[in-house]
Amino acid sequence: MRILVLGGDGYLGWPTALHLSARGHDVGVVDSFARRQYDNEMGVDSLVPIRQLQRRVATWKEVTGYTVQPFIGDLTDHVFVEQTIREFAPEAVVHFAEQRSAPYSMIDREHAVYTQVNNVVGTLNLLYAIAELDPTVHLVKLGTMGEYGTPNIDIEEGFIEITHKGRTDVLPYPKQPGSFYHLSKVHDSHNIQFACRIWGLRATDLNQGIVYGQETPETTLHRDLLTRFDYDGVFGTVLNRFAVQAAVGYPLTVYGKGGQTRAMLDIRDTLACVELACINPAEAGEYRVFNQFTESFSVRELADRTARVSGGEVTVDTVPDPRVEKEEHYFHAVTTKLPALGLKPHLLVDATIERLVETAKHYKDRVNFEAIRPTVNWRSTKSQVSVAGGAAGE
Amino acid sequence: MRILVLGGDGYLGWPTALHLSARGHDVGVVDSFARRQYDNEMGVDSLVPIRQLQRRVATWKEVTGYTVQPFIGDLTDHVFVEQTIREFAPEAVVHFAEQRSAPYSMIDREHAVYTQVNNVVGTLNLLYAIAELDPTVHLVKLGTMGEYGTPNIDIEEGFIEITHKGRTDVLPYPKQPGSFYHLSKVHDSHNIQFACRIWGLRATDLNQGIVYGQETPETTLHRDLLTRFDYDGVFGTVLNRFAVQAAVGYPLTVYGKGGQTRAMLDIRDTLACVELACINPAEAGEYRVFNQFTESFSVRELADRTARVSGGEVTVDTVPDPRVEKEEHYFHAVTTKLPALGLKPHLLVDATIERLVETAKHYKDRVNFEAIRPTVNWRSTKSQVSVAGGAAGE
Repeated sequence: MRILVLGGDGYLGWPTALHLSARGHDVGVVDSFARRQYDNEMGVDSLVPIRQLQRRVATWKEVTGYTVQPFIGDLTDHVFVEQTIREFAPEAVVHFAEQRSAPYSMIDREHAVYTQVNNVVGTLNLLYAIAELDPTVHLVKLGTMGEYGTPNIDIEEGFIEITHKGRTDVLPYPKQPGSFYHLSKVHDSHNIQFACRIWGLRATDLNQGIVYGQETPETTLHRDLLTRFDYDGVFGTVLNRFAVQAAVGYPLTVYGKGGQTRAMLDIRDTLACVELACINPAEAGEYRVFNQFTESFSVRELADRTARVSGGEVTVDTVPDPRVEKEEHYFHAVTTKLPALGLKPHLLVDATIERLVETAKHYKDRVNFEAIRPTVNWRSTKSQVSVAGGAAGE
Repeated sequence: MRILVLGGDGYLGWPTALHLSARGHDVGVVDSFARRQYDNEMGVDSLVPIRQLQRRVATWKEVTGYTVQPFIGDLTDHVFVEQTIREFAPEAVVHFAEQRSAPYSMIDREHAVYTQVNNVVGTLNLLYAIAELDPTVHLVKLGTMGEYGTPNIDIEEGFIEITHKGRTDVLPYPKQPGSFYHLSKVHDSHNIQFACRIWGLRATDLNQGIVYGQETPETTLHRDLLTRFDYDGVFGTVLNRFAVQAAVGYPLTVYGKGGQTRAMLDIRDTLACVELACINPAEAGEYRVFNQFTESFSVRELADRTARVSGGEVTVDTVPDPRVEKEEHYFHAVTTKLPALGLKPHLLVDATIERLVETAKHYKDRVNFEAIRPTVNWRSTKSQVSVAGGAAGE
């Protein structure tokens, strides 16, 4: 298949592009390098050094013989979007190209507005380009399990049958997102669903859990192919960040009671899920939602497990929760559609955490301790995120 | 109370400002005149001539002795928003200041993006300004009944109790909006609800039906105080537009089967509802939704009634529905909260339609027939709306 990966320079976009390329698909990657600029803004960097996109695709070609075609530009530039879709003529577009950090969106007004405009307008431009140029293109969009929030009932896959006052309908599952970033994904979901309805587009919204892990069979073929490893308080996500903290002996920072339960998955399963969605496209006019995760864990559970696996020298530290969220809550989410398509999950094993800690230890001289603590407070309208000293070089 | 009316130069914003002023509130109005620019863009104009805002407030002062303070600027300019909130120091902010036409948002990509960015960013700027300057300010936001779409179950007021797999929760009512404009209001609703949750703001989302009527006790005091009367295919709404068509002998254009049923209300009830929301504010941290309408009618019912009331010389014409919507559907929406606060509805009587037709006949030389027909097709990604010949002068 011809598959265009938007945000193909990012933590997941890059390994996804390689995975699809290795499996024989014709792959293009689109990126504006916005993600690298966020690092510059905050004075942080990926723990594992990453190459520029041009070098990455050149090395991929050298190592495997496969071509990945890069397109440099921004989705908020609709002329670029149209030109790229026209030139590459994809059968599927995998859309990772959004500002994806909840804390980043909560820094202040500017970052909230930036996140919503960037994500919503980029996706609108994409929907219009597909509708105008080729409505058969299948949009595979990265959403998030965070769109649902933490309702006191089971979370279904995008839709729920409701019986009310003697009548029944299947309606979009109610959304209670927990940051301006998560809200942007909810806005996208509503816009995409509408575009499918009016223009007959086909779309799959992948409501993804929190991803852990950093290595995939393709990224480890050569050091030039490695993907990002974020550990900072803004872009670092829970298990990856804990592994780095454990590696450098920094107490694991659990926010509040740590009863926050989140859907999660291994990075290798992200790649498999995206390919399954691509090769099993939605019907014309269909907007479907897959809950993309394999297991659920509480934050405290992950902290305790990381501490145990990494040898027990590490302590678990409770810090006041910088977010406004329930610290203890019911959580049960359904995920049946991706397993039905053939997903074979990599469940979380100690070896995965050990390998993350090992990687982190290898690069521990690059860790800026200042960047680990949470700096963005949901209750404030203005937080300071720039890290004193900045990131260490390679 | 000190009440700031955003969009205070518009069809409803202006009469609302006068109503609140006449009832002894200290009123400020904010407007960027974006609405007047849409007319220039399309070559259409209000059927009833309207004065500039500066003249309006001067005449209001002369006629009644009351002062309405104007603030000229755009909500997407956050510095202006902060300065205005700081200077006027309102207790309540009534927010009409959004692009409010579904067809306008569906013209093409540019108009869809403009509508969503304008509406979402303006509201985000407002939420931040309130949170930073005075979180006790009560935001009274105009939403729309169109946020709900046409589900096959009863529509509740913003939230619905759902029992699912043996557990129960009260969750946001699922949204199925029918245009990029309606989607922008859904995005706003989610953003506002979140701001109440994290910052303890107080907000009332008025999910308003389609408003009909043009005269209020205050606007009819002087010709300088009259409000807009839109009849064009883009900004004209159903009953007002039918009245103009009847007045000039233009067949009433029913879209498709005409079984589209919509919640509606008299313009005088809009003013009463907004004041009821202001004087009965939400609690700190509370996000509440009022369904703001009094009756429901199908489009065909309104066409037949307009034809009958206006003397039967007018025919009803069926045109292919330019929108993607159900032309026959279940519709039952709840509205209990505004009546509980004391709303006494003006139900639709023939005299109201007669008066609209009479007004339209008075200004019939200003009608541009070219502007009446629907020009925006939901199924197309690009429609042409500029009207040949433009609008006639006064």
